Amino acid sequence: MWPDHRIQDFFGIELPIIQAPMAGAVGEAMAIAVSEAGGLGSLPCAMLSPDEARTALGQVRERTTRPINLNFFCHQPPRHNPERERAWQQRLTPYYLELGIDLDLSVATPSRTSFDAALCDVVVELAPTIVSFHFGLPDKQLLDRIKTTGAKLMSSATTVEEARWLEQAGCDAIIAQGAEAGGHRGMFLTSNVSTQIGTMALVPQVVDAVSVPVIAAGGIADARGIVAAFALGASAVQMGTAYLRCPETLISPLHRQALAQARDDQTVLTNVFTGRPARALVNRLVREVGPISNLAPDFPGAAAAVMPLRLAAEPAGADDFSFMLSGQAAPLGLDLPAAELTRQLATASLARFA
Amino acid sequence: MWPDHRIQDFFGIELPIIQAPMAGAVGEAMAIAVSEAGGLGSLPCAMLSPDEARTALGQVRERTTRPINLNFFCHQPPRHNPERERAWQQRLTPYYLELGIDLDLSVATPSRTSFDAALCDVVVELAPTIVSFHFGLPDKQLLDRIKTTGAKLMSSATTVEEARWLEQAGCDAIIAQGAEAGGHRGMFLTSNVSTQIGTMALVPQVVDAVSVPVIAAGGIADARGIVAAFALGASAVQMGTAYLRCPETLISPLHRQALAQARDDQTVLTNVFTGRPARALVNRLVREVGPISNLAPDFPGAAAAVMPLRLAAEPAGADDFSFMLSGQAAPLGLDLPAAELTRQLATASLARFA
Repeated sequence: MWPDHRIQDFFGIELPIIQAPMAGAVGEAMAIAVSEAGGLGSLPCAMLSPDEARTALGQVRERTTRPINLNFFCHQPPRHNPERERAWQQRLTPYYLELGIDLDLSVATPSRTSFDAALCDVVVELAPTIVSFHFGLPDKQLLDRIKTTGAKLMSSATTVEEARWLEQAGCDAIIAQGAEAGGHRGMFLTSNVSTQIGTMALVPQVVDAVSVPVIAAGGIADARGIVAAFALGASAVQMGTAYLRCPETLISPLHRQALAQARDDQTVLTNVFTGRPARALVNRLVREVGPISNLAPDFPGAAAAVMPLRLAAEPAGADDFSFMLSGQAAPLGLDLPAAELTRQLATASLARFA
Repeated sequence: MWPDHRIQDFFGIELPIIQAPMAGAVGEAMAIAVSEAGGLGSLPCAMLSPDEARTALGQVRERTTRPINLNFFCHQPPRHNPERERAWQQRLTPYYLELGIDLDLSVATPSRTSFDAALCDVVVELAPTIVSFHFGLPDKQLLDRIKTTGAKLMSSATTVEEARWLEQAGCDAIIAQGAEAGGHRGMFLTSNVSTQIGTMALVPQVVDAVSVPVIAAGGIADARGIVAAFALGASAVQMGTAYLRCPETLISPLHRQALAQARDDQTVLTNVFTGRPARALVNRLVREVGPISNLAPDFPGAAAAVMPLRLAAEPAGADDFSFMLSGQAAPLGLDLPAAELTRQLATASLARFA
């Protein structure tokens, strides 16, 4: 038996396993598979327009009636800073020259939208069970509109201070995102990566600081991690990297291959891909320009100048400029379909609790 | 019942709780208290001369017959590098001027000795139950001499690669030191702090990689952490910061006060105090010169020029230049005598396993 049932009862899910949203890497198929298996599937909307989000959730709704989590970014939209963008472009110019790319080449870069009134309209219209945010929370006015739909609210805390802030602002559950986690740090009251806290230390301190249920994230990729998270006081886990290797993900073959070969010590917190710190596999761009560059324009602005490099390198089989999300527990992952992975994780965890 | 008994059986201890050595911060009283309570007390010898180590262990032996761990550093002794030392001195000169310290002042700095033949003689003579190392292992010749005494060997791994290396070299148990841990990183095959791994991700990967028992360290400061560590596959825990607040420690009143007030997000991996990365509370020196400075001379050389600053600042109540070891779970600590803390941790853990 699961030692804590709060998240299951509250969200109406069978298993306290949440698939992390991972914008750009997962879509409807993953969310449907995880929710149908009894976990909580998450549909990342940060890179979708309001219309795309509406269509995506509509497709999910056709194939499952189970709870679904819609996830949005809520960063401060960046100020236009031509000087910084020029400096960043200059820092990357040697790579453009090496790859023979026109310096004026501009390619379509997936946008990363901050939650706004138009996206809020979609939420109000489609009324998902759960709405989660990354990078804090949106303005109170938007938050109040979401709450009128009855949706449960959650967001990520990377420190105790952020957890307290989120509870105060009305979150129904808090994701304690330990430093091991892959992808963007949810940090919003600090920008200092050097003081970010590991899951083992963060989870019990967040549990002590707030009264809402806490979801552990970061470095959890098998049943051992799930059982450990509950021991620390968590009421559920959110797993990203473990799901990245599922066939349902939209990642490139290069990313998939790199994950399968990853070692524990090959990821780093870097801002070179988007302008915000995210844990990713170390590659040439990270090594030579990062891991943290003061030249990278504000999130998500850094991505535009990197994209042409990635597009030029990948067809030749080089992941030198690819943004390859990964947490520190990638080697614990399995190449299983998402539903089967969810069920296996639950079965193996329950066997350990028994 | 403890779910894994390998370390207890192997070391002949009652409780799978190891007090971390913490050179400079603990002495005989702590080691005796923890061992008498049923855990494994560790006597740090890295800042002791062979004669001091002999005397210290003699005093321990008079007061307990239980197993004791003698701990040594085994870093490469630094090459003398006058240019680097001058650059470091120059970087610190503004603080000397501010505090009115003579730039030529040289004060006694506690030495940090690398394990050598003379210290090996002490080990062979006194035959402790366990000998542990930090920063890898000493030369094979010294290691072979230790093994003839029947002592069990252990050392810290911060990556899977280091764990494999230590097992290959003959370690009987491996401490998986997650990035949350206070004090010096045991890293010896890498010097890159940005890829260091959190306990939640590191422990299961080390457990999968080696066949000797694994001791989890880093971010574990209460029964929740102990139970979580066992869930991850560990056979014991090593706890440092949790013991730092015991009355038996030799830390300064300023350090003690800072630990009692510490928050989760106030430590950092820094090399400014000794030249090697160590997790410590953020203070002025860390903020302004670190956290990682390329000017800091090789370990332990950076300490000499910092010591006069510390000695000048502390009497005025300022911890601006004090090396205040702390892991990320300091706020979970309790001000209890070491024996009582050990027993409480064991009782609370056993209640959760039941």
